Amino acid sequence: MTGQDQSPTAQLSEALSTAAAAVEETMVALLTPSDSAAPRLWQAMRYAALSGGKRLRPFFVLQSARLCGVSGEPALRTAAAVELVHAYSLVHDDLPAMDDDNMRRGQPTVHRQFDEATAILAGDALQTLAFEVLSGPETHPSAEVRSQLVAALAQASGAAGMAGGQMLDLGAADTDWDETSIQQLQSMKTAALFACACELGAILGEAPPDQRIALRTFGLNFGLAFQITDDLMDVTGDASEAGKAVGKDAAQGKATLVELEGLESARAIAARFCHNAMESLDLYGDRADLLREIAGSVTSRRS
Amino acid sequence: MTGQDQSPTAQLSEALSTAAAAVEETMVALLTPSDSAAPRLWQAMRYAALSGGKRLRPFFVLQSARLCGVSGEPALRTAAAVELVHAYSLVHDDLPAMDDDNMRRGQPTVHRQFDEATAILAGDALQTLAFEVLSGPETHPSAEVRSQLVAALAQASGAAGMAGGQMLDLGAADTDWDETSIQQLQSMKTAALFACACELGAILGEAPPDQRIALRTFGLNFGLAFQITDDLMDVTGDASEAGKAVGKDAAQGKATLVELEGLESARAIAARFCHNAMESLDLYGDRADLLREIAGSVTSRRS
Repeated sequence: MTGQDQSPTAQLSEALSTAAAAVEETMVALLTPSDSAAPRLWQAMRYAALSGGKRLRPFFVLQSARLCGVSGEPALRTAAAVELVHAYSLVHDDLPAMDDDNMRRGQPTVHRQFDEATAILAGDALQTLAFEVLSGPETHPSAEVRSQLVAALAQASGAAGMAGGQMLDLGAADTDWDETSIQQLQSMKTAALFACACELGAILGEAPPDQRIALRTFGLNFGLAFQITDDLMDVTGDASEAGKAVGKDAAQGKATLVELEGLESARAIAARFCHNAMESLDLYGDRADLLREIAGSVTSRRS
Repeated sequence: MTGQDQSPTAQLSEALSTAAAAVEETMVALLTPSDSAAPRLWQAMRYAALSGGKRLRPFFVLQSARLCGVSGEPALRTAAAVELVHAYSLVHDDLPAMDDDNMRRGQPTVHRQFDEATAILAGDALQTLAFEVLSGPETHPSAEVRSQLVAALAQASGAAGMAGGQMLDLGAADTDWDETSIQQLQSMKTAALFACACELGAILGEAPPDQRIALRTFGLNFGLAFQITDDLMDVTGDASEAGKAVGKDAAQGKATLVELEGLESARAIAARFCHNAMESLDLYGDRADLLREIAGSVTSRRS
């Protein structure tokens, strides 16, 4: 059955699988050095980064790059770099001193499978590898583009982005929250990396500012909707479907819109972010239908 | 008293102080964002990165850059980036799951002053900031140079360099060591970042390959001598002079040349590396005297 004959849901599902397989192949190559003096570290890095997952962030890089005229090695390496940063953040977030999780995607977390020291170092080295990949000439012939990729990923994942958001999340129990401050936390912790994934595609394609902003806006709104549905699943979900423990947010005093506003209101806010995400793609017409489809599907996700 | 009238030791001491103050100022600026949503994280990052230290790696960046015709903001930002990576590695190495150190430079380590989760995130975000700094246009007008800076720092500090060396170090008690394998461990754990610091100066100056190799070789040999003297101090030193606990290597089964070969032999090997370091600077004539002086002084260091 060809793409045209399939339902939008089936098309999206096939596109996600194809992208995940291609990104996986790129990541395997990046995580298999020809000469490894510290084999246990690489083993832990591979365990962390190649243990499945939907590869949503890489998918966004690939789709955004395609909309801006870029495919192949540059798009795949950039997609892999974003996933390396995501993988590093999961390894560190799962540590006993942080969220203290034993399971991730149905497998023991890295510090349970190896040990804490190895998990810390594997996370560190996954982050470093992401920047090494982006700076390499194989990622893009233009050094200006490569520098912009590095800068954008660093801004999204550092103290002003993902790491800062995780810091706020850890201190959440001691803070008074309202909708605005929770949204800032979730923008940093989750949505910044989705926004960045989409923006990197525009950077790769040296797209004009309006396209760059449109793709960023899509990623940011998608990420906010995604985080709310994550929080909803923590309340309503089941551990075997989610592949990790559920019901932990309330116990740990995490700041979520579900806690603050209740289930129905949180669902409505997520739907609004999805709508905003889709609207931001207007300038791409039906070429952006896969991104629209994934935004439309986020509120019904189960894992 | 002007530079010419001073003894080489006094000149080096003054040059080190001047460089440390300039790098400190650059780091303070980089670690003070105009708008900080996660103030505790930035506070921990500043605590980690601005708590003194000799700033040897930044000094090497500045000196190498000077030898290749570069000074000012590009050299200072690059120097600061290397020190941010060094600072991140110390924060993570000190964690309970790693070397479990309570004191560093005479102060409580970051996880003692804050908590473990904050220390993990502060280390993560310091690393990210280093790459953000290098990728910024203020660091160098040429994006090709900026990409090379990022690539070189990533290679030196990732799984094939510093992080890989720390992994080997943690597993040292379970391994059979000889001089070659210890030297490989110490090349990765310590010398790679010194070699990189020197090479970054050459990259900034777009120096020809022979100069780049000469500076790299200097840094690598200096770093190996530096690590051996560190191991010597752990055996012979005193905690108040060193600003941290001593006598821990043997207790933790660390692989050092001091353990393997004894004090006298380790001193001789360190002296040989210093000699190699100085020799590699021949093509710079007396313009490299400060680097020669610091290499000559390393075997008599006390902290």
